[in-house]
Amino acid sequence: MHKADIIYASEEQAGRQFVERVWGKRPTYAVVIGNTETAKIPGVSAAGAVPEITDFTPAADVELLYYGRCKCIDGVPVTPTGVPTPGIIAMSALQLVSMPIFAINAGVRVRPHTPYFELEGVPGEDIRTGKALKDPRRVYENGVVLGRELAKNSEYLVIGESIAGGTTTALAVLMAMGYDGQGKVSSSMIDNPHSLKEKIVQEGISNSPFSKEQMKADPLKAVQAVGDPMMPAAAGVVAGAAESIPVIMAGGTQMAAVMAIVKGLAPQVLSNIALGTTKWIVNDRTSDVRSIVKQIGKVPILAADLDFGPSKHEGLNVWEQGLVKEGVGAGGISVAAFLASQGKIGKNEMLAKVEENYVQLMRIMGK
Amino acid sequence: MHKADIIYASEEQAGRQFVERVWGKRPTYAVVIGNTETAKIPGVSAAGAVPEITDFTPAADVELLYYGRCKCIDGVPVTPTGVPTPGIIAMSALQLVSMPIFAINAGVRVRPHTPYFELEGVPGEDIRTGKALKDPRRVYENGVVLGRELAKNSEYLVIGESIAGGTTTALAVLMAMGYDGQGKVSSSMIDNPHSLKEKIVQEGISNSPFSKEQMKADPLKAVQAVGDPMMPAAAGVVAGAAESIPVIMAGGTQMAAVMAIVKGLAPQVLSNIALGTTKWIVNDRTSDVRSIVKQIGKVPILAADLDFGPSKHEGLNVWEQGLVKEGVGAGGISVAAFLASQGKIGKNEMLAKVEENYVQLMRIMGK
Repeated sequence: MHKADIIYASEEQAGRQFVERVWGKRPTYAVVIGNTETAKIPGVSAAGAVPEITDFTPAADVELLYYGRCKCIDGVPVTPTGVPTPGIIAMSALQLVSMPIFAINAGVRVRPHTPYFELEGVPGEDIRTGKALKDPRRVYENGVVLGRELAKNSEYLVIGESIAGGTTTALAVLMAMGYDGQGKVSSSMIDNPHSLKEKIVQEGISNSPFSKEQMKADPLKAVQAVGDPMMPAAAGVVAGAAESIPVIMAGGTQMAAVMAIVKGLAPQVLSNIALGTTKWIVNDRTSDVRSIVKQIGKVPILAADLDFGPSKHEGLNVWEQGLVKEGVGAGGISVAAFLASQGKIGKNEMLAKVEENYVQLMRIMGK
Repeated sequence: MHKADIIYASEEQAGRQFVERVWGKRPTYAVVIGNTETAKIPGVSAAGAVPEITDFTPAADVELLYYGRCKCIDGVPVTPTGVPTPGIIAMSALQLVSMPIFAINAGVRVRPHTPYFELEGVPGEDIRTGKALKDPRRVYENGVVLGRELAKNSEYLVIGESIAGGTTTALAVLMAMGYDGQGKVSSSMIDNPHSLKEKIVQEGISNSPFSKEQMKADPLKAVQAVGDPMMPAAAGVVAGAAESIPVIMAGGTQMAAVMAIVKGLAPQVLSNIALGTTKWIVNDRTSDVRSIVKQIGKVPILAADLDFGPSKHEGLNVWEQGLVKEGVGAGGISVAAFLASQGKIGKNEMLAKVEENYVQLMRIMGK
């Protein structure tokens, strides 16, 4: 039995079979970026110290992955309390195991100073309008085409995301599609603002031009009404790639919402998918990713058993208290690094690399 | 000795060694697209029946590769005399040997209805202004980053282009860099308008804000003054990829100009490069690709020994008279198909597939 620092958080048998299939293999990493005005509603997101900064977060995260530093902003994205972006974890995993990194622009206001795939998406509106996106079908279809191309020379795919405000739109799309998401989506903050999110979601759904039945029958209508641009892009790439190769959907409850969209549009690929996330997500008492995924299907959840408790840096210790938890594919890409190295890389090697990067980035920021 | 329908048109020994390295391997195909106002100067390009149509040609070519038909225009791009785009040849080769296809937008006016990489380039101005491009260095640098990522899971790379008016800008950049290109670049037309091209080039060079010495010393200055957007993008991707994997630069004299740029910016990668083109280019009496490449270095030229003479379709027979000759990586991707199939696919299989596609596309066009 293969041994790695992975928690089989749901559907253990399917999870172990998935691990067997990709053990020792090298994936391609794709990170889907977008912006939604929803992130600027006060109290929604911690992905930027001030709401307008959330426009820069996805681009800054991609730059971090490519160059080890951001170009479009000074320093790195931090929460209002100074916790750095989970992009640092993703970046560290990618430094430990070399793999191709492709950014996918699903609709950002600020473009990264890197190459990226363009899927002709546009930034999302505040979902309270019920008219969040323009043409998610076109983006989804472009995503499917891209996923098929990426699959042609990849052993498997890991796909992550960076979009501030994304857990609120995740809740909205889940509920619009008829899933029970109440109290189940996670948050980048310690106090998960469930009631605020639900109020926003209800407003969006009631303003949607589509009926509940229409949104249940067609995930892209739910996305068009109350989703964010990351969703149709990520769902399309997953649907296209998982036709032929295994896919780790790297994220927490946001990726679970994308998985629900995939189920509605391409259910036949679900057996080729695992959710890859962090220990902090599966252990989070303010959200319930297992419950969401169970409603979708028998999809395994693999959680990277990361532990920042032993770190001498307070900025990293706080991760153990449940700040930030996940993002930029941090958990799934850590899982991929553990698997690619056949378990040689684990929680200790990850913490050492994250500390190294943390010190270096804090120095750049003059802290 | 490996046998395939390939003409070793220059540096045969290096060419045979290159073939040895990639024999039976499957490449990634990248096609770089852009537009230049230069294409609209009367008499310059045959890549569109009317000058404005040249804006659509690259996008239409990419759609042809992805979907087997164009979306942004009806039918397919044709010359004023009705000869279809060399995209049909590239498309046919890609149908015979499956490989990932990635479009790279270096600066187009019309975007394809496909996913594509964005390198933040913009369409080029008429080179007679001497101010053809805005920031080719940024595009080049993005290209290098992208080339490195593409190389991580590709055995080798084939890179083609689609940009109308590109042989004129090729001549301009070669001459601005101090190469002898006079009378040596090819044309999509039977009567190669050398004197018109040279007049345009002289005007551009004399209006350049840079001195001859500056443009000789820095290829990106030559490109900025009198180049087209495809050039810095393709040169960057080649420079980044060829650091670690073999690269077939798929094209004729336009790609030779890109090779000259690569030599100026990343000479160490030249030993990892071959030019892949068509028989019609190496046999063309109105141009001299060998002479251009010889001025750059000991880079082999591999030409696909295609023969459309036996076809029952006049629209294909005319290729033997030297119309169009090359484009959209037609020659290089044919070479790659021959090599990937270990010689099982050759001129006969290619003609059969091209005829099949030709008939189907002419039917769509109602001809």
